[in-house]
Amino acid sequence: MEKEEGNSLKSAPQATTISRRELLKLAGIGGAGLLLGAAGMGGLWNKADKATGGALGTEPRNLASGDQIPFYGDHQAGITTPAQNHILFAAFDVTAAGADNVRELFKAWTAAAAEMAKGSMIGDKNEHANLPPSDTGEAAGLSPSKLTITFGAGPSLFDGRFGLSAKRPAALVDLPAFGGDELLEEWSGGDLAVQVNADDMQVAFHAIRNLARIARGKAVLRWTQEGFQRTGAADKAGATPRNLMGFKDGTANPDTSDQAEMERIVWADASDGAAWMAGGSYMIVRRIRIRVEVWDRSTLQDQEATFGRYRHSGAPLGGKDEFDAVELSRKDEQGEPIIPIRSHMALARGDGTNKILRRSFSYSSGMDHKTGQLDAGLLFVCFNRDSRKQFIPMQQKLGQSDLLNEYIVHTGSAIFACFPGVKEGGYIGETLL
Amino acid sequence: MEKEEGNSLKSAPQATTISRRELLKLAGIGGAGLLLGAAGMGGLWNKADKATGGALGTEPRNLASGDQIPFYGDHQAGITTPAQNHILFAAFDVTAAGADNVRELFKAWTAAAAEMAKGSMIGDKNEHANLPPSDTGEAAGLSPSKLTITFGAGPSLFDGRFGLSAKRPAALVDLPAFGGDELLEEWSGGDLAVQVNADDMQVAFHAIRNLARIARGKAVLRWTQEGFQRTGAADKAGATPRNLMGFKDGTANPDTSDQAEMERIVWADASDGAAWMAGGSYMIVRRIRIRVEVWDRSTLQDQEATFGRYRHSGAPLGGKDEFDAVELSRKDEQGEPIIPIRSHMALARGDGTNKILRRSFSYSSGMDHKTGQLDAGLLFVCFNRDSRKQFIPMQQKLGQSDLLNEYIVHTGSAIFACFPGVKEGGYIGETLL
Repeated sequence: MEKEEGNSLKSAPQATTISRRELLKLAGIGGAGLLLGAAGMGGLWNKADKATGGALGTEPRNLASGDQIPFYGDHQAGITTPAQNHILFAAFDVTAAGADNVRELFKAWTAAAAEMAKGSMIGDKNEHANLPPSDTGEAAGLSPSKLTITFGAGPSLFDGRFGLSAKRPAALVDLPAFGGDELLEEWSGGDLAVQVNADDMQVAFHAIRNLARIARGKAVLRWTQEGFQRTGAADKAGATPRNLMGFKDGTANPDTSDQAEMERIVWADASDGAAWMAGGSYMIVRRIRIRVEVWDRSTLQDQEATFGRYRHSGAPLGGKDEFDAVELSRKDEQGEPIIPIRSHMALARGDGTNKILRRSFSYSSGMDHKTGQLDAGLLFVCFNRDSRKQFIPMQQKLGQSDLLNEYIVHTGSAIFACFPGVKEGGYIGETLL
Repeated sequence: MEKEEGNSLKSAPQATTISRRELLKLAGIGGAGLLLGAAGMGGLWNKADKATGGALGTEPRNLASGDQIPFYGDHQAGITTPAQNHILFAAFDVTAAGADNVRELFKAWTAAAAEMAKGSMIGDKNEHANLPPSDTGEAAGLSPSKLTITFGAGPSLFDGRFGLSAKRPAALVDLPAFGGDELLEEWSGGDLAVQVNADDMQVAFHAIRNLARIARGKAVLRWTQEGFQRTGAADKAGATPRNLMGFKDGTANPDTSDQAEMERIVWADASDGAAWMAGGSYMIVRRIRIRVEVWDRSTLQDQEATFGRYRHSGAPLGGKDEFDAVELSRKDEQGEPIIPIRSHMALARGDGTNKILRRSFSYSSGMDHKTGQLDAGLLFVCFNRDSRKQFIPMQQKLGQSDLLNEYIVHTGSAIFACFPGVKEGGYIGETLL
């Protein structure tokens, strides 16, 4: 590293004059051996360094990790993808005028998202001493960690600013007011949605931070929310995760490997009215605070009646195993339904034909300094093909009657049209713009 | 499960009349086979169920996990323990009068903490239909996840309310004002500290939530902060973690396996003045917000000059490898120090004799709705034997001159005397009370 003497503030000198992309090209031509023999390579880095023992191979991308989920595909990742350990959800508002700016933003976001999904650094300006690095660096050395980034458009994107009013899908309705709503602006709405999921929180943070940075001048953060679920390492049995009320959550979720079921429940179709949404899905995000302290004072019997399931096994009341058939018509000796009709499960299930794909996470956001209580709960995320027929009627029933309402309050709400998947060379939202 | 018919709202009937402890006793006498043949076992559960296929073995505790860190020991866990993936730090204020109440709280906290460290449910009231469960349940089925819980006392505990004024250690000073402080009450101080760490965020949340619940009537939450670092799964090479500025953080940390070094740097000794703190340590917690957007606009050269290290390798400027010797006296051709004297590393290092044990985590707490910027940064945690000689002089230099101050702001601050370790049968704080 003798070359680094002389000016301590500069990075490796080569790197200030030759971009990473150029070096990678060279690597392809001259072979890795030549480059590894050259001085100044210490200044060149990407996330693959660790996996390759610090040496730059002929392959520019992260070589070692099996925890990579492709960004490109027929559908966006992060919808039917099995839920990762963490979520960082962000809503953005577009500040620039004109559809061209939105298109440019989407192209830049697509390129960055595809790089990050591979575990690569963003851009080719990471070793120029006199420039801000194009990647903020905190995920360097980390694997892709099953990173997925799911993009969507909120109703307000179609308000006329970008000439898109005519393209607003009928299914992208403004959500009606629901019972139990105490919505706050700071956790609601947004022109654009960016749902980031990863098994590593630092990887998830890196993604949102860099996407917000790339959006500078075109869009600004409107609200964000971190969330988690139990990790695979902690739950070696791979059981249905529990929510912060201690109950299993997601038992009745449809099988994401059943293509026909996903077509029926999740994926929008050209025949639904908005051709540009074919292969996309509608996402609803609700920030649901749990009144933890109230819940924790209620009896096990009340808790189980509230959910309609046993806390321990997750079985429907009167049943034995988590996946036992739900028999809402069963009565006890007094003629009362064994599963209370106002229980969360009974109402959400209804006659069993209306389904959504839930993909929720728990959240812990410090405490509410007004009350001294924990600000914790559920970042409810679901996907459906048509919210008018699926999420909305379900939530209307729940908002009106759910026994759970005594213990929760909905503090945030948003709906987005999540774009169809993108092929390499394309960009998110291209069917819209 | 026929016994559960008749009244759907009740849990397994046996469990409402026989406590878990009694059942475990029975299991020890009659053997598991007898019990497993009995009806109503579906209502009895603990975290070991999953590992044992749902059956209750003769061993009551979590049987399978290798990720357990003992709660009892000469020192508290969570100090020299290698940092887990997550932190949930909580400061409490004592609301009850009298040292007896504090003692009772500490005994209850000790029992619960020891249970949770083993991955067990708290208490024996988890299957009584007419009682609130003694464990809130969200960590059921999860492994111990390297859970550690570290308890400490803040200066305000010695203010006279509990007759402890004479026992306040001289080393438990009120921290002076430092340059760069913009401290807020909502992230500062506290009578008691509970540092929870785990590899799983749900396990960490469960711990704080249940300890807060147990404290009801005796102590209330004052402030909490979640934090994370990259997971072991994402960083298979086990490199020094990076902070959210993209730089490796902790390179110069002392070796926690070096007992003599830990005695010198971390563990308080009876000869230090407060005999009850022998084997304990003083913890400083600082919530340091990073001005992410400003940092991200600065050049790589400025960033590296700010830290005094290369971003990629973590090597000191002018050096090659992360662990190269730091030569602060080296000059470039113009006679300027290669490592700027106001760089974070140069100031924190000084002459290399003053050390602390850093145990920090990154945090992401949504966004600042006033500015639209990310509220993210570092939850700085360190331990030292005497803050007057170690942390305070170090932070005074940093607060005054650190180039990093342009990019960070200290928004929270607290100091605690973390108790010596506890032996089984004892309780945290017993040497004090």
